[in-house]
Amino acid sequence: MKKVLLKISYDGTNYSGWQRQDNALTVQEVVETAIRKLSGQEVSLIAASRTDAGVHALSQFASFEDESTIPAEKYAIALNTKLPYDIRVLESKEVEVAFHCRFDVIHKTYQYRIHCSPHASALFRNFSYHVPYALDLQSMQMAAVKLIGEHDFTAFESTGGITKSKVRHVYESKLFLEKEFIIYHIKGNGFLYNMVRIIVGTLIDIGKGKLACAAIDEAFIRMDRRCLGHTAPPQGLVLTEVMYPKQ
Amino acid sequence: MKKVLLKISYDGTNYSGWQRQDNALTVQEVVETAIRKLSGQEVSLIAASRTDAGVHALSQFASFEDESTIPAEKYAIALNTKLPYDIRVLESKEVEVAFHCRFDVIHKTYQYRIHCSPHASALFRNFSYHVPYALDLQSMQMAAVKLIGEHDFTAFESTGGITKSKVRHVYESKLFLEKEFIIYHIKGNGFLYNMVRIIVGTLIDIGKGKLACAAIDEAFIRMDRRCLGHTAPPQGLVLTEVMYPKQ
Repeated sequence: MKKVLLKISYDGTNYSGWQRQDNALTVQEVVETAIRKLSGQEVSLIAASRTDAGVHALSQFASFEDESTIPAEKYAIALNTKLPYDIRVLESKEVEVAFHCRFDVIHKTYQYRIHCSPHASALFRNFSYHVPYALDLQSMQMAAVKLIGEHDFTAFESTGGITKSKVRHVYESKLFLEKEFIIYHIKGNGFLYNMVRIIVGTLIDIGKGKLACAAIDEAFIRMDRRCLGHTAPPQGLVLTEVMYPKQ
Repeated sequence: MKKVLLKISYDGTNYSGWQRQDNALTVQEVVETAIRKLSGQEVSLIAASRTDAGVHALSQFASFEDESTIPAEKYAIALNTKLPYDIRVLESKEVEVAFHCRFDVIHKTYQYRIHCSPHASALFRNFSYHVPYALDLQSMQMAAVKLIGEHDFTAFESTGGITKSKVRHVYESKLFLEKEFIIYHIKGNGFLYNMVRIIVGTLIDIGKGKLACAAIDEAFIRMDRRCLGHTAPPQGLVLTEVMYPKQ
């Protein structure tokens, strides 16, 4: 038996997120089905991130235990012949059997695209959050910086989160302009359920003047979701990078 | 009667191009239907560019003669309530009755996105042309510059073109890198049928070493399509700007 690690990119528009569900089509199920068609094996993928419905990945990782004779590095090209065009395997390689695709993550990076324009975008409708009112980028940037460091992010989680410890370390948290878009970039050692989308919704509410920057400090102290802003919708979010220790 | 000019953006993926056809759904038909639903009028739109099936627009323009009492500037918001999300009207305004949406164009700009990567992109599959082999950007840039100026572009047209004069003036023709993409940017006073896609296919063949830069010079002299490279597929192409005289 060997362990195979896949680097996967997907357009999440047509899927109910990563994780297998009984009554909805998910990316995990489609990739597992492709592995079955290719190798005859029923595998269970473990992913770096369980992305929500509508969330995209430029660089997701998933691993499985492989009993076949297919060389690990051949899986990428072979699986792409079995997968729909909105899911692509970018790389495949063998990793140590002890490797754990979720627990071994050193840090993950997400980007969120906010479309600032009076009218919605036809081309970016599935890859951005349309905000038709003016945003004060400077106060949003001041608020974004407050997230950097090790904090208890209890207030930044939707109900339904399953992890016990709510302490996470955020290494990077910044906003920048790209044409008519504001891009939010966050790198951390882990993220709670809906954490990035709650951060983005809060930053937008701060940019609108609906919330003060101090809402972030208050949320850390009170650990109360109600200190923060709305949850931004999923389609603006992309998992862009996952870092593992050198193998 | 007044003349109304619409600025329109669309994701061309699900349409058989701009121009109305009997047996296929086009952007023109969908916008004309929305105008009928809104105002009760059967109008004929005239567009700045008749984009092909699968080609996108960030900034297309189309005008119609309006007998209704709807203020011209209200059309944008009102039409968006009747249109699918892959077509958005970004602006609407009244123009002089003598205005002609195609003939009055001073220049148009297109961008073409080439995706240079061993594997296809899940997220950009409908917005780029995947080229899995190495390209020599420098020789492509040398070739791109040769297109600038006034030339007879006869060789750069697919059969089926309808304009008599094949002389066009290209003001800008350049390539630049953006992450794993090569972007081709071209601005001109007009474009023949498939001209941009033939240019891009030729530049790629030059970047591959399959054609020499001199192919461009030869095509201008011989006026023969066979001097040039393949026609790049439509989905990488976006109409990004149309310039009219100040009204």
